[in-house]
Amino acid sequence: MNSALDTKRTVAELKELRALTSDANGAQRVAFTPMWVKTRAWLREKLETLPVEIHTDAAGNLWTTLHGESEKALLIGGHMDSVPNGGWLDGCLNVLAGVEILRRLNAQYHGKPPVTVRLVDWADEEGARFGKSLFGSSACSGNLDMDEARVLKDKNGISLPDALREVGVDFERVKDSGKELKNAAAYLELHIEQGPVLLDLDLPLGAVLGTFGVERHAITFHGQAAHSGSTPMNRRKDAFLAAAKMSLQIYQIAAHSGNGVCTIGSCLTKPGIVTSVVEECRITLDQRNLDPAALEKMLSEAKTASEKFAHEGNVRVSWERLWQIAPRPFNDELIALCDDAIREACGQSHRLPSGPLHDAAEVAAAGVPTVMMFVQSLHGISHNKIEDTKEEHMELCIIAFDKLAEKAMQWIARG
Amino acid sequence: MNSALDTKRTVAELKELRALTSDANGAQRVAFTPMWVKTRAWLREKLETLPVEIHTDAAGNLWTTLHGESEKALLIGGHMDSVPNGGWLDGCLNVLAGVEILRRLNAQYHGKPPVTVRLVDWADEEGARFGKSLFGSSACSGNLDMDEARVLKDKNGISLPDALREVGVDFERVKDSGKELKNAAAYLELHIEQGPVLLDLDLPLGAVLGTFGVERHAITFHGQAAHSGSTPMNRRKDAFLAAAKMSLQIYQIAAHSGNGVCTIGSCLTKPGIVTSVVEECRITLDQRNLDPAALEKMLSEAKTASEKFAHEGNVRVSWERLWQIAPRPFNDELIALCDDAIREACGQSHRLPSGPLHDAAEVAAAGVPTVMMFVQSLHGISHNKIEDTKEEHMELCIIAFDKLAEKAMQWIARG
Repeated sequence: MNSALDTKRTVAELKELRALTSDANGAQRVAFTPMWVKTRAWLREKLETLPVEIHTDAAGNLWTTLHGESEKALLIGGHMDSVPNGGWLDGCLNVLAGVEILRRLNAQYHGKPPVTVRLVDWADEEGARFGKSLFGSSACSGNLDMDEARVLKDKNGISLPDALREVGVDFERVKDSGKELKNAAAYLELHIEQGPVLLDLDLPLGAVLGTFGVERHAITFHGQAAHSGSTPMNRRKDAFLAAAKMSLQIYQIAAHSGNGVCTIGSCLTKPGIVTSVVEECRITLDQRNLDPAALEKMLSEAKTASEKFAHEGNVRVSWERLWQIAPRPFNDELIALCDDAIREACGQSHRLPSGPLHDAAEVAAAGVPTVMMFVQSLHGISHNKIEDTKEEHMELCIIAFDKLAEKAMQWIARG
Repeated sequence: MNSALDTKRTVAELKELRALTSDANGAQRVAFTPMWVKTRAWLREKLETLPVEIHTDAAGNLWTTLHGESEKALLIGGHMDSVPNGGWLDGCLNVLAGVEILRRLNAQYHGKPPVTVRLVDWADEEGARFGKSLFGSSACSGNLDMDEARVLKDKNGISLPDALREVGVDFERVKDSGKELKNAAAYLELHIEQGPVLLDLDLPLGAVLGTFGVERHAITFHGQAAHSGSTPMNRRKDAFLAAAKMSLQIYQIAAHSGNGVCTIGSCLTKPGIVTSVVEECRITLDQRNLDPAALEKMLSEAKTASEKFAHEGNVRVSWERLWQIAPRPFNDELIALCDDAIREACGQSHRLPSGPLHDAAEVAAAGVPTVMMFVQSLHGISHNKIEDTKEEHMELCIIAFDKLAEKAMQWIARG
C-alpha cells in the first residue's frame, strides 16, 4: 500500500472527468440532470475502493465516511455539479482532492485515522437550474427558505420538488440532512479562486478569510420626460444623470471600505428613446464586504449619495432591496493552519476574502469552524469554459490542502 | 363685411375641432387615417366660405389661395395632423390662425390683397404612423429621400405608398408638389413652443431664429464582464462607468456651446445582470445647435471625451451615426418683422431657437425666406394631452401673427 499522496493521479482523474462530462462548450454537470447522476456514479466507483461508508442524505448530498479513533469529524467538501458550459475545475477539484486525501489517510493510518474524516459532495451548489445556489448545504445548515424553494421552477416549468423526486429526494424532508453535522469539528474546502487576486500577485495559493456579506438593491431615479430639442439644460429632471453620478461614487465608496467591492450591473432607462430626457432610470447596486460594519457603512454611504444626486438633479430616488446575506468570517485558528500549510507547500501565502459564495459559508453559518483554500485561476475567470489552473498549481494545491487536512485533524484531536 | 380679426372665433373653432377629433387621451388626428380625412373635410368647409381656390398637391398637402395684385405669394403654413394622444393645439393652431388671417385680408382688401396669400396644411408633419416626420413639406422642398420613404411601413405592415394611395396620392409623384413654391416670397408659421423657455420668462410670444441642427449618435463602450464579488475594483473594465462619465460631460459641453443642448436618452447594458461588471454599454447622444460650427464643435468635444473616459477605464469606445440634419436659420429681415409684430401686440418679444423640427425648416431649406412665431406652452410640454396655452395667449398670438402677415405682405410688395 502506497502511503504517499499521488497528485498526478488526481490531475489524471480530473481530466478523465472532463472527458466524461464536458463538451466543446465546457462542463455540463448541472445538478439533478442525467449527466450529474452519471458523474456521481463515476465518483462512487472511485470511493468504493476504500474502506468507507457512503450514503446520500435527505437533501441529496453524498457523504463518504472514513471512521477514525474519535467520532469527532473533519469534513472536506466540494460539489460535482457545474453551471451549463462551466469550467472544468470549479467544485470537482475540491472533491477529487478530498478523495486523494482519504486515500493517503487510509494508507498512512491503516484505515483508522485519529479522528473521523468525511468527504461531502454538496447537491446543487451552483443553483444553475433553479436560480438558487447552495441548495444542499443550506438545507444541511438549516438556512434554506422552504417556502421560497418550494415554488422554484426551471425554464421548462418543472418545480424543484419534482426535480428532486426524480433523483430520490423528498423536498419536505431535506432539512433532516442537518443531522450530518452532529459531530462536525472542522470543515475544509479547496476551490479555484474565480478572481484575479492570486494571479496578479503571482502566487499559487491563498488562505480565505471568509465569504463577503452582500447587499443587493435596485435604485430608481424618477425624473421627467422632456423633449431633447426644446428643453433647456437647466430645466431638465434627468434621471440618467443622477444614476450616472452613482457610478463614479461607488468607486469612491469601495476605495475607503477596506476590502469591499461595489458593482452597478444593469441600467434601464424609460422612455429610453433618443429624443427624450430620461424620465426613469433603474440601476442595480451590488455591495460586498467581509466586515459587517463596513458593509453597513457602504450601504449607508450609497444611500446618502443617491439622495444628494437626486436633490442636485431635481429628481426623486427610491430603493428596493433585492437580496442580502451577512458576511461569513472563517475560523481564525483554521486560517492560521491554512497559512502554515500553504507556506510549507510553496513558501508564501496570502490572505484574501471570497467574493463569490461557497458551501463553506453555509457550514460556517451552522457553527462549524471553517476555512477555505484558494488556488490561482488563470485569466482570473470562472463559470466559463476557459477557466483553468496551471498543472503545477493543481498539484501544489493538493499537497497544501492535504497538509491542511492533517493539521486540522491534529487540531481536532487536541480538542 | 366685418374687416376686424375675430380672435374669439378662432378659439371657438379650435374647441370645435377638439370636440370633433379628440378623445379622453388627447388629439387623434394621425395623418392618412379616417379621422385626418374628416378633419380636412371640416377645414375645407371653413375655407369654402371665402373666395379662394383650394386644391391638394401631389404630396397630399392642402393649398388654399387668395389671389392678390401680385403673383408673388406669402405662404402661411401649419399641419392638421397630430401624434396619437396628442395636444389639441400642436399644428392646428397655426392653420386656424391662418384661416382667420385670410378672412381679415379678404375683408380688408375686398378679395384682392397686394400679394397672393396662400395657406398650406402640410401632410403628415408628425410622422407618427411611419416614423418619418415632415413628409409633405420635405416632398415639396425636394429633400425627401424617396428610397428610404418607399419602404417605410406602419405597425400593421402597411407601406407608406399604400397608405398614400388610400388618400389619393401617388407616392412616385410626390415631389411634383415642389412647383407649389414657384412664386413663394415668404413663409410664416405660428406654433405652440413645445418647451418651457417663454413660460420661464413669463412672456406670451417669441420670434424663432431657426431650427436646430441635430447630430444623433449611438456610443458603445466595450469593457469586460467580470464577477461582481471576485473582481477587485482596480481590475475592472467597466463599460457603464465610462458611459456614466459622458452624462456629466454633456452638461459641460452644452454649457459652453452657446444655445446648444445635449441629451443621453437611453442606456443599454450587457450582460445587464446584478452579479456582473457591465461588459458593453450603449448610450444614445442627441446634440442640437442653431450654429453649424458650434454643433460640429459639440460633436467633436463629445468624441474626445468618450475617448478619454474609455482610456481611463481601460475600455474601448465606438460611435455610430443614427441621424443628422443641418441647422436651418430663418430670414433675418423676417425675424425683425416678427419681433416688431410681437412688440406691437404685447410689448415685449424674445428671440429663441427651435429645438424641435417644423415644416418651416423644409421651406427654409428650399430657399424661401422664412420665420416662425412661438406662443407660450403651459407646463412647457407637448405631444401630450395636457398640452395647453392660456386663452389670452391664444388670442394674443393670433393678433401678433396677423400683424406679422401684414408686415410680411408689405415687405414682399416692396420687393
